[in-house]
Amino acid sequence: MKVVIIGSGNVATVLGKKILAAGHEILQVMSPNLAHARTLGDILFCEVTNDFNNVHAGGELYLFALSDFALEGIHEKISLFHSLAVHTAGSVSKSVFKKVSTNYGVLYPLQSLRANTEILPEIPFLIDGNNPESLLQIQTFAHTISDRVEHADDLQRLKLHVAAVISSNFANHLYALAEEFCEAEKVDFNLLHPLILETASRVTDYSPKTLQTGPAIRNDVPTMRKHSKLLKPYPVLRRIYNQISESIHDFYKSNPNSY
Amino acid sequence: MKVVIIGSGNVATVLGKKILAAGHEILQVMSPNLAHARTLGDILFCEVTNDFNNVHAGGELYLFALSDFALEGIHEKISLFHSLAVHTAGSVSKSVFKKVSTNYGVLYPLQSLRANTEILPEIPFLIDGNNPESLLQIQTFAHTISDRVEHADDLQRLKLHVAAVISSNFANHLYALAEEFCEAEKVDFNLLHPLILETASRVTDYSPKTLQTGPAIRNDVPTMRKHSKLLKPYPVLRRIYNQISESIHDFYKSNPNSY
Repeated sequence: MKVVIIGSGNVATVLGKKILAAGHEILQVMSPNLAHARTLGDILFCEVTNDFNNVHAGGELYLFALSDFALEGIHEKISLFHSLAVHTAGSVSKSVFKKVSTNYGVLYPLQSLRANTEILPEIPFLIDGNNPESLLQIQTFAHTISDRVEHADDLQRLKLHVAAVISSNFANHLYALAEEFCEAEKVDFNLLHPLILETASRVTDYSPKTLQTGPAIRNDVPTMRKHSKLLKPYPVLRRIYNQISESIHDFYKSNPNSY
Repeated sequence: MKVVIIGSGNVATVLGKKILAAGHEILQVMSPNLAHARTLGDILFCEVTNDFNNVHAGGELYLFALSDFALEGIHEKISLFHSLAVHTAGSVSKSVFKKVSTNYGVLYPLQSLRANTEILPEIPFLIDGNNPESLLQIQTFAHTISDRVEHADDLQRLKLHVAAVISSNFANHLYALAEEFCEAEKVDFNLLHPLILETASRVTDYSPKTLQTGPAIRNDVPTMRKHSKLLKPYPVLRRIYNQISESIHDFYKSNPNSY
């Protein structure tokens, strides 16, 4: 397919590389920031522009890898008539394109993408389309860049997005809080890397609710007291410690069979 | 070394396998539950007992892989005189062995161990000893079963234990809550596996505080409102969502350079 990419951030870069590698022709990268557009254009061997008025007219697929905020106002910037427009956002309705084209949808990568990663991770895509033809086109295209493609409407995508925030963004914040604690207390956070990786890897093979360990599920009050005392100088972390411990305790009290 | 293992759970099983594979001689497994002792004895090709009075006298190293609670009363059950006694607990002082032997310490695996895993994960060990000779003996032994061995006293070990609980047990609970939400809302939690794994893997290469993404760090209020609305029927999860989002926001407000 002939593809035009709007955006030049992490998502535009990683998907651009995947799209190029799959043999599609990338006509152009458009980004309000011309330097960023050029950097990505060099990677994708295509022309660039920073002006919505100069967006290439010959695209079959226009991929909008923009912030939620930029997407909401997109119909004021560009009109594509009947060309296929897709965005890559987890929590934005496909209908942001209603005044942009008659054919549109979503190509949402359910993965954390970073422009600089050398090895691209597996990316499941959640797709949607405003009519059966758009959906089929997006599905066919998505399958050229990923083995894992699922249809999800706006609400289903939003649900998976909140689940992703909880199990990825929030897990990362726990790592960051633990690291900060270790730095302040002068113990080596790096020693936890194998444990963190093992905990995440197991989710692929088992339901996480069957894998829960730690003092809270055992209701090991003496250990939790020792921990709580250590966390006294870290009131935010201590509050999170208490709240999640309580949640673990309640979760397994009401799901006794899962332990 | 000639090793006697006290305990027959996940830690005893995994460490027993590692110890045997490293070429040590396992003399005996002792467990109050004879059936469990036999199961592990079969795996480790050694005799078993369920009676503290019959614990083999010829051990050079006695590995106590017991619950914190069982460890606290261990001096009432066994006396080892001068033989080396170690336990595997994160938050129990080495001094539980004060009345058990003159030589003792800790061999704490900073990893989540499951008896049935086929591929054993990398296990960093935190070790301690009550005198330089015990410490050296434990260190030498630990190096035969792991490349990653660090000295940590009771307090340092407890600090790493609380950091492990936060970044592993709590991360797993977030996965479990997200899974429960997905099941209730009829979307496929399995689609999140690659994201969960990618998020954890990156911690090996980068500090997690430099990796934070998601609506909270962007202060993306409209998205957080949409999420909060979806989470209304899940009050516990919603409270955790709000609290961790707030913590992310505050963390990066006071650490602006890390983002």
